[in-house]
Amino acid sequence: MPSSPTPFLVLTPREVNRAAVAAHPELTAVPYDPASPIATETTRQAHGIIVQTEHVTPTLQLLQQLPQLQLVQTLSAGVDLWDGNLPAGVQLSNARGAHGQGTAELVMAMLLAHVRELREFMEDQAGHDWATRVTDSLHGKRVLILGAGDLAGHLQAMLAPFGASTTLVGRTAREGVISLAGAREMLPQTDAVVAVLPHTPQTRHLIDAEFLAALPDGAIVINAGRGPIVDTPALLAELQSRRLRAGLDVTDPEPLPADHPLWDAPGLILTPHVGGDTLGNEERSAQVAAEQLAQFARSGTAANLIHR
Amino acid sequence: MPSSPTPFLVLTPREVNRAAVAAHPELTAVPYDPASPIATETTRQAHGIIVQTEHVTPTLQLLQQLPQLQLVQTLSAGVDLWDGNLPAGVQLSNARGAHGQGTAELVMAMLLAHVRELREFMEDQAGHDWATRVTDSLHGKRVLILGAGDLAGHLQAMLAPFGASTTLVGRTAREGVISLAGAREMLPQTDAVVAVLPHTPQTRHLIDAEFLAALPDGAIVINAGRGPIVDTPALLAELQSRRLRAGLDVTDPEPLPADHPLWDAPGLILTPHVGGDTLGNEERSAQVAAEQLAQFARSGTAANLIHR
Repeated sequence: MPSSPTPFLVLTPREVNRAAVAAHPELTAVPYDPASPIATETTRQAHGIIVQTEHVTPTLQLLQQLPQLQLVQTLSAGVDLWDGNLPAGVQLSNARGAHGQGTAELVMAMLLAHVRELREFMEDQAGHDWATRVTDSLHGKRVLILGAGDLAGHLQAMLAPFGASTTLVGRTAREGVISLAGAREMLPQTDAVVAVLPHTPQTRHLIDAEFLAALPDGAIVINAGRGPIVDTPALLAELQSRRLRAGLDVTDPEPLPADHPLWDAPGLILTPHVGGDTLGNEERSAQVAAEQLAQFARSGTAANLIHR
Repeated sequence: MPSSPTPFLVLTPREVNRAAVAAHPELTAVPYDPASPIATETTRQAHGIIVQTEHVTPTLQLLQQLPQLQLVQTLSAGVDLWDGNLPAGVQLSNARGAHGQGTAELVMAMLLAHVRELREFMEDQAGHDWATRVTDSLHGKRVLILGAGDLAGHLQAMLAPFGASTTLVGRTAREGVISLAGAREMLPQTDAVVAVLPHTPQTRHLIDAEFLAALPDGAIVINAGRGPIVDTPALLAELQSRRLRAGLDVTDPEPLPADHPLWDAPGLILTPHVGGDTLGNEERSAQVAAEQLAQFARSGTAANLIHR
């Protein structure tokens, strides 16, 4: 494989990223301290940088000092912390493909815990109570997936063997994907809605009081995308009246303050934004990020480039 | 379709079974009271009977008074309550195919709750504690399924999209199925064992202290077959030392007495034999049972006949 004539220098925040970048002959890994906002003589030569959500403020200051910077590469699927805040002409790419399966898995865990009443059976177990009963199941359930990317595809594949039917919802209708307008018409015939969307002005409070009111009694609402997609007070009201059930891996506000009423909402399973945080995930996101940088170094574009 | 010259009379315990039997022209449904051990002039004419696990003792007495009886049909997959207790010459058939997906679903719910730490996150939620952490996942897990029938097939299909690999274990090795001897060699490289076997002299205490000791630390043991497959004190010891984790939908003894130490075993998710007890299951098992009786009335055999 021919390497590019000049090496494409990539600032790497951690050893796992350095190793993944070093596996690509087009790239040269240069370490940097993501907590420091000051460029050094070496880091100033960078063409690309892998950024971490833990250090947004110092990193945004650092980016301003990198005259040759062409690409900012995230380790997350979401880019809302970076999009719109980059120096002019600098492109942005995400780690789509690294987190989808793990987050889809958590959605499945939440859906199954709801329909098979795991929390209730765990309470019976704690009370030494052998209380047999008939539960719901995913069989025959109609699941509306708000999203049509990597994560949605994993979720669709996972739901099929359970006998659930799925509909993907995207910004524009295409084969196998319906539009949001079409999705709104389906809400009265929907047993579970799963939001796996990024946070944009268009998705903010997409799931509001009107959206929720259109769902039938007992429907399950899962948010594994970004907290602000759901209007929190509207969902809270539906949970407190025990009309709907929910699973939230993201919240608004996030992290959820200890005194927030959502913690104690009935029929809610709440996890602290851990959808993609599974063992091996750090290696997977490092590999996806390095692959994007290598594509960009070769061709000036990358599969995960964010087009604005 | 030609109907048989003499109608094949089937004793049906419930309306749902009567309706399913009535859908087959070969069969004539006759109601009976499964709690009563006394045959009437009408029930004495029966060629087949659909039996319920709730009324084993009176039903076994009733069977002795049915001179024309040819087939006893269960609504369950397990037949251990009936096998060996029937009048001479009477055959036995089960409802295999009706419960597999529901029970496989509960196994998936248990596996996912373990790897994604749902019980621990529910405890954090109760304590209003936003405690992010990296968890395990099913991705890359090696799952040994003790069983190779309908339920095992459903489970294999459900696990695949999560990136888990599965091995089916049957009484005899064949394509896609290994023998129990082969399975024992794989135990040190197994992350989860799922037992979905019937209770027979061969399967009793199959999962004993030696079997469990061969599993690596942190492995998960699920029993969704019959309680006596697992040596309860041996599993309890592994749980109390926190070396293994488990999910049990069946126990030995069953139901589990309120003072049994298994209730409080660490790392155990325990449900009260509800694997197949999902909404719609009664209709599915009624349909499978009626189909077996219709096959038997036509041909003298049935797909689910138990060969002894």
